[in-house]
Amino acid sequence: MTIYGGIEAGGTKFICVIGSGPDEILAETRVPTTTPDETIQHVIRFFKENSTDHPLRSVGVGSFGPVDLDTLSPTYGYITTTPKPGWMNTNLLGAIQEALSLPVTFDTDVNTAALGEQEWGAAQGMHDFLYVTIGTGIGGGALINNQLLHGLIHPEMGHIRLPHDFEADPFPGICPFHGDCFEGLASGPALQHRWGGHPAETLPENHPCWQLEAHYIALAVHNLVCDFSPQRVILGGGVMENRFLFPMVRQEVHNLVNGYIQTPLLTAHREDFIVPPGLGNRSGVLGALVLAMRSYPEE
Amino acid sequence: MTIYGGIEAGGTKFICVIGSGPDEILAETRVPTTTPDETIQHVIRFFKENSTDHPLRSVGVGSFGPVDLDTLSPTYGYITTTPKPGWMNTNLLGAIQEALSLPVTFDTDVNTAALGEQEWGAAQGMHDFLYVTIGTGIGGGALINNQLLHGLIHPEMGHIRLPHDFEADPFPGICPFHGDCFEGLASGPALQHRWGGHPAETLPENHPCWQLEAHYIALAVHNLVCDFSPQRVILGGGVMENRFLFPMVRQEVHNLVNGYIQTPLLTAHREDFIVPPGLGNRSGVLGALVLAMRSYPEE
Repeated sequence: MTIYGGIEAGGTKFICVIGSGPDEILAETRVPTTTPDETIQHVIRFFKENSTDHPLRSVGVGSFGPVDLDTLSPTYGYITTTPKPGWMNTNLLGAIQEALSLPVTFDTDVNTAALGEQEWGAAQGMHDFLYVTIGTGIGGGALINNQLLHGLIHPEMGHIRLPHDFEADPFPGICPFHGDCFEGLASGPALQHRWGGHPAETLPENHPCWQLEAHYIALAVHNLVCDFSPQRVILGGGVMENRFLFPMVRQEVHNLVNGYIQTPLLTAHREDFIVPPGLGNRSGVLGALVLAMRSYPEE
Repeated sequence: MTIYGGIEAGGTKFICVIGSGPDEILAETRVPTTTPDETIQHVIRFFKENSTDHPLRSVGVGSFGPVDLDTLSPTYGYITTTPKPGWMNTNLLGAIQEALSLPVTFDTDVNTAALGEQEWGAAQGMHDFLYVTIGTGIGGGALINNQLLHGLIHPEMGHIRLPHDFEADPFPGICPFHGDCFEGLASGPALQHRWGGHPAETLPENHPCWQLEAHYIALAVHNLVCDFSPQRVILGGGVMENRFLFPMVRQEVHNLVNGYIQTPLLTAHREDFIVPPGLGNRSGVLGALVLAMRSYPEE
């Protein structure tokens, strides 16, 4: 069996796996995201120590961003303009590739999560779908005609502007670039700031925060549906672990579309259009394995 | 030389051409959009009368919508839920195909316009770009990884919801489905309704309507840039024939992005990111030719 490495490079932790699928993980570790040097050295040590018995064919990396995905660019594989202290202009791909002497394939965390969901999760057999994470940040990955969407750089779906009724919700939003964009209004930290510092996971299901949260998520999903016409929208990330949000979001997306887009998928009771990730919180790291596998298939 | 037919099926007129490129048009006609029967009979007669000397290899149709593009669907090639009187559930493709006994390829008007721009217009050599028309209605077509985006049905980019400051602009919008979606706020008829019934083309350049119009267009373009990360955004349609809108939209998109997406293309003075169609108002009908050519290449 061909063995691959997968890295989900997140803003709080890096998750690394060695294996060939969700049920064939030979080794795994979690490394806190501290400085680039320290974190990357931990990651490299994990792969060196655990690949002697099973040499790796290649490694896939799904990274927080923004990242440079242009293979012709001198900063290909870098984390670029991130506001995360110390991580701006970090040559993540280069450092790993050089230390492991292996081919490394690099993409955004949400694109790799989309790949994971397509291979083993909630988007099996689909060729046009979205994976959106709503957690510390908000971002989205898209498969279109069965190919990852990169475009000029890569999408930044978390930063779309949404209707914001300041009278009903005077919260100005917390995005340092845009204030009340989707991420500024509806990310986990936005929830926490808006509701007196209580972390989102401590707010009970009957708290008014959730209706407002579902409202912004539904506006964003509606816009994504208009833009992409996806077969399915997978909503992952920490905020969506509150599964009671799903029926609320489905109902409001249905109301917003208001019959204009004619598909039975958009009726309010359908549970197979707006769905949680099939791989739970493992879409990203397993998707990094898929990225490696598809880039360097079994020989 | 292989000769093709192209049809831009619009809500006010059908434009039909016979030829092989912008400079090789052998015949052309415009047919007012009245009833489906009458309009389609006109179109068929044009092609029958003008293809005796140069038999057509195939015909491409770019249609107003919504349309059914699912080749496996029993209503493939139909105009479906259009509010246009008389045109709901019209078998446009079938009627033309049967009468002409030719292969006919069918897509949305904005997708074919995007093809036209890629082949001969403002998107030559590009693989990820958007064509958005702002006129009687608003819609968008996308090429992603050099392929048309269809997804589940097809995009409806004109119906995204945008921030709408009711205090500054109390106009409720005119979209019968969504009120103040992008089309409801910024289409040609929306402009006319909002400003006392004056058609958009009669409003002078210094009228306050244009700053507001540029504002909504910029919000939409910003969202499309976040979602698709395009190499270029082509803005066509009657409203955008007011070329003074382009610098206003560029400046405001630059302000909205606010440095988050790092590319020289998004600096305010760049004129090669948000651009008018290279084919003027001919993108749609010439794109219909491209659709025919690419579906049935020269033998």
